[in-house]
Amino acid sequence: MKKINDVLIVDPVKGTFVGDVVISNGKIEKVSPTNSGTYEHTLMPGFIDPHTHGCVGNDTMSLTEEKLTEWEHFLYSQGVTTFLPTTVSAKKEDMLRVSDMVGKYIHRKTQTSVYGVHYEGPYINVKKKGAQNPNVIRNASSEELKQVLSPVVKLVTMAPEIDGFYDALPILKKQGVVVSLGHMDANFKDMKRAFLHGVNRITHFPNAIKGLHHRELGGVGAGFYLDFHLEMIVDGVHLVPEFVNMVYKIKGADRIILVTDSIDAAGLKDGEYNLGGLKVKVENGKATLSDGTLAGSTLLFNRAVKNFKKFTNCSLQELAKVSSYNAARDLNIKNVARIEEGYKANIVILDKELNVITTYLNGEIVYEV
Amino acid sequence: MKKINDVLIVDPVKGTFVGDVVISNGKIEKVSPTNSGTYEHTLMPGFIDPHTHGCVGNDTMSLTEEKLTEWEHFLYSQGVTTFLPTTVSAKKEDMLRVSDMVGKYIHRKTQTSVYGVHYEGPYINVKKKGAQNPNVIRNASSEELKQVLSPVVKLVTMAPEIDGFYDALPILKKQGVVVSLGHMDANFKDMKRAFLHGVNRITHFPNAIKGLHHRELGGVGAGFYLDFHLEMIVDGVHLVPEFVNMVYKIKGADRIILVTDSIDAAGLKDGEYNLGGLKVKVENGKATLSDGTLAGSTLLFNRAVKNFKKFTNCSLQELAKVSSYNAARDLNIKNVARIEEGYKANIVILDKELNVITTYLNGEIVYEV
Repeated sequence: MKKINDVLIVDPVKGTFVGDVVISNGKIEKVSPTNSGTYEHTLMPGFIDPHTHGCVGNDTMSLTEEKLTEWEHFLYSQGVTTFLPTTVSAKKEDMLRVSDMVGKYIHRKTQTSVYGVHYEGPYINVKKKGAQNPNVIRNASSEELKQVLSPVVKLVTMAPEIDGFYDALPILKKQGVVVSLGHMDANFKDMKRAFLHGVNRITHFPNAIKGLHHRELGGVGAGFYLDFHLEMIVDGVHLVPEFVNMVYKIKGADRIILVTDSIDAAGLKDGEYNLGGLKVKVENGKATLSDGTLAGSTLLFNRAVKNFKKFTNCSLQELAKVSSYNAARDLNIKNVARIEEGYKANIVILDKELNVITTYLNGEIVYEV
Repeated sequence: MKKINDVLIVDPVKGTFVGDVVISNGKIEKVSPTNSGTYEHTLMPGFIDPHTHGCVGNDTMSLTEEKLTEWEHFLYSQGVTTFLPTTVSAKKEDMLRVSDMVGKYIHRKTQTSVYGVHYEGPYINVKKKGAQNPNVIRNASSEELKQVLSPVVKLVTMAPEIDGFYDALPILKKQGVVVSLGHMDANFKDMKRAFLHGVNRITHFPNAIKGLHHRELGGVGAGFYLDFHLEMIVDGVHLVPEFVNMVYKIKGADRIILVTDSIDAAGLKDGEYNLGGLKVKVENGKATLSDGTLAGSTLLFNRAVKNFKKFTNCSLQELAKVSSYNAARDLNIKNVARIEEGYKANIVILDKELNVITTYLNGEIVYEV
């Protein structure tokens, strides 16, 4: 049993209050408000990153158990207690290799922050490829999908306008895989059709998405207008701070999911790196292809959290929503992302500047400053 | 004294209730809610159109007293009790001719719905000229402004990024002229600067305005993000219905001002017309230049009101805001746009399909079906 006393407890549902938390058997056993009112640290649900390609030299496409362990441990320092290694568009055998590897990894570990795999592509629109390799981008094939899906695959980013999308949906649904719309040239009608088919999530909004026009709302207009949940890369590079704040004002904190979309160069120095076979140059933390296309980010999750707070001046309760609760709800991850009795003790403790002080995974300290 | 009994009274501030209205000496003398609950007709403040270039064959640029009288009378049938004949970009002498003519017209009439002149240009950005004549578009000159302004000029549409804009602002302010931003390639920074200088109105949003991008919000992003009041042409052509509804959801009814931006062809049949020296073709009510550019609208105000209700499913109280109250507040027109004791009896009575049944100007019936 562990007790954390006199912290500012931030629960995404109940809000913010000073209190004590008792942890036992990997779970939050008790949450008690106190009357003291004074606190030094802030306690929030551990962060969730549903979209990250890598960091500190590790990349989803070339993982080993050792590398994934290193990645996972590094993310503890960012307060991340759940994440989805994310592929880029790749050949079937490469997708299978990644999901097999991650599946075995999760199986072997008694506790891990690795929740499953996010396939970002290859079933996307080559017109909006971003930094993805156009040679392997392709239409959705039900046959192929049945082969590449397994219980470890939790999230798939697809473009709704590609051939095979509507044949793929029931297969994905049956497997419990969440679909996110992205890397797409879809117009408003395409977006609405997908939405009416139950898809309510958009990948790194509004990057690699058809822009807003007043006579064709595009994917961006659909993101604003329909009740989509939006991933956002809040590094201040992919989106200017005002854009982030505008989306926050328009959609509210309930509809925003922070992601890093980070590549292997995240947490490392500037230099040349590799993203799914493409050369990436990182200068001042900004990762681009040779033609200037943004190539994922070097954003770290703790920075994303600080940026969102700074750009929007949101409440801490809202910050807990965008950094964990919304992601968990979308992916149907049970018993995390609340500071509430019975929930898993995946917790991050922060100082008043939102720097990570301590990270708990299943009630165990996995990172401490 | 006149009494209008058992109508659904729609006041933009107090809301909607069944009652009686007593009119006396051109004013609303009494508003009494009744308990009957049944009504046939709806009573709202008379509509205000701050942006119209003409209709039924009349055009601001070639007005005579007879033509303006005809225009005014036609607009009664649309429920309009206040409007601003609006120029297009023109030479100084043409602007002066229009404002002199309209000034004298207002002076001579004991009652009129003509409130003053709206100069739309010529101090705009030629890059976003829309259907304005590029040969007369120019930077703002303080000297020229002092000559073309007179008490009848109430509203000027200018681009904030053109030379002379910030020299013009204090001159316009001193004269009590409201500035609206439009026909502009302004980026977000330009828009914000103008906003911080007290300009809070945008002309026919988002037409002829720099689009939204996530790394440069443009005029469209500024319209969403900052507390601008937005003119909108709700004809279903300039903007698709979903765009209108999206703006309504984002900004709310307090920030939207319906305008027609109508040209002389409005209320007439399809054919060829003239807009400030440019040939305009009207097909199925859609007015375009030879290159396909939208050239103002053939929208009539009553249709705009019905469209807004249909596109947004707003309340009648909100409809009163977008069709009169907000325009009056922005232009500082006193004692109109409320159904409240002491206010001018500029009133429109509508059936349940929002067709105009009767229009009152200063307490007199000026139109009746």
